[in-house]
Amino acid sequence: MQKAILNVIKIGGNVIDNPPQLEQFLKDFASLEGYSVLVHGGGKIATEMAKELGIQSQMIDGRRVTDEASLRIVSMVYAGWINKSIVAQIQGFGKNALGLSGPDGQLIISKKRNPIPINYGWVGDIEHVNGHALSQLINLGYHPVFAPITADKKGQLLNTNADTMAQALAIALSEFYQVHLIYCFEKQGVLMDPKNDDSVISSIDQNTFEELKKKEIVSAGMIPKLENALKAISQGVHEVQIGHAKNLKFPSKGTTIKAL
Amino acid sequence: MQKAILNVIKIGGNVIDNPPQLEQFLKDFASLEGYSVLVHGGGKIATEMAKELGIQSQMIDGRRVTDEASLRIVSMVYAGWINKSIVAQIQGFGKNALGLSGPDGQLIISKKRNPIPINYGWVGDIEHVNGHALSQLINLGYHPVFAPITADKKGQLLNTNADTMAQALAIALSEFYQVHLIYCFEKQGVLMDPKNDDSVISSIDQNTFEELKKKEIVSAGMIPKLENALKAISQGVHEVQIGHAKNLKFPSKGTTIKAL
Repeated sequence: MQKAILNVIKIGGNVIDNPPQLEQFLKDFASLEGYSVLVHGGGKIATEMAKELGIQSQMIDGRRVTDEASLRIVSMVYAGWINKSIVAQIQGFGKNALGLSGPDGQLIISKKRNPIPINYGWVGDIEHVNGHALSQLINLGYHPVFAPITADKKGQLLNTNADTMAQALAIALSEFYQVHLIYCFEKQGVLMDPKNDDSVISSIDQNTFEELKKKEIVSAGMIPKLENALKAISQGVHEVQIGHAKNLKFPSKGTTIKAL
Repeated sequence: MQKAILNVIKIGGNVIDNPPQLEQFLKDFASLEGYSVLVHGGGKIATEMAKELGIQSQMIDGRRVTDEASLRIVSMVYAGWINKSIVAQIQGFGKNALGLSGPDGQLIISKKRNPIPINYGWVGDIEHVNGHALSQLINLGYHPVFAPITADKKGQLLNTNADTMAQALAIALSEFYQVHLIYCFEKQGVLMDPKNDDSVISSIDQNTFEELKKKEIVSAGMIPKLENALKAISQGVHEVQIGHAKNLKFPSKGTTIKAL
């Protein structure tokens, strides 16, 4: 029997920071047919909140260092305000969204990242996704909406990369569905020339990626996203695309990630 | 066939403000047999956060007035930090907790409170609990943990009284389970003399309540809690008790609410 189609969609921070764009995106998400899972990033709200509270956000290589005060802020902003606002908005558009974080139902278990060579603080790397339990919720008619917060087995909350979470969910759910992973952000796709929106690279595989990296065409911020996308397509995810949030319903306009 | 027993437990703010007491309470909660639902209040964290952000919390008759900035704070603190911390801790103690708020799965639908005679701001009164959907989640093995945040049908988040939420959940779930509603807080029960912990009133019904109110024995803060408890026992909830958080496993040490 052919597996049912499931969309795992990641929506990036810049769209979350723009309420009218976010609203349009959530409307499009709500109108998608079939099963779907949404993973959202955090945007600048956490950084702004930290600033207002007089807590300095430390960054290494574009990644946030999560000290105890920052962990509290990201848990509040991502799993509280953003997650519940998004869930309530999607419900308002008629789709049965269910807001989740990793510790809920122990759906995602992570482990604190080794502090050597770089101490990122309370950051978790995903160890396990309970795809079976998640598929039960999906089959009941829920559309899970994940905030990028997880916990380890002992109950320690951990800040988690949303792109990686989308990849791990897509891989785990491929056992039960034909998964289509779509990374939505503020650009048209992976660009040959970051200043030219028409320079979308229509498809990328592992070889093209190595070449783009060597030629320094892909930016530092794009590299982990592409690594996540390539890992997904090599581990059972049916289709992986990277494109603009406004093209959620036309993902082939962006960059398609191909298996070798 | 006899219905299975389900405990709906409300844990109050003062316990949440005390990490060692909260930890012991969550350990006890995790060790309860059978089905259970936890509803948590917010404690002083939201008020402190508002203060740090320079936002003044307005109170009328002991109830918070929720303006837009406050709604954001309570959503963050209640549904984010507190809810996910509690869920992760319960998971650490081996019970499969699932953190929820009203908009999740549209499990609880509320309506903005009429601003006349008193404008409480973005406060929601519960209109409907989807007991069937909630019972499906419970029967899958999840122990729902609710933050006191709901939304209306259009997706507007609303601050909601946690005592009332526990009552509404207990009533709705009585269709499917034999529900035991336990209000846990920092006192031994309803006291004849607020200064004397040994003066627990062992049982209260509607008539006793009217008398206690007339004699001004019950405090302003206790009246809505007792009204919630009395509504629950009159609308199908099997047992209702009010007691100390440390006596979660011995609720008969507190005050039992009786039907007339």
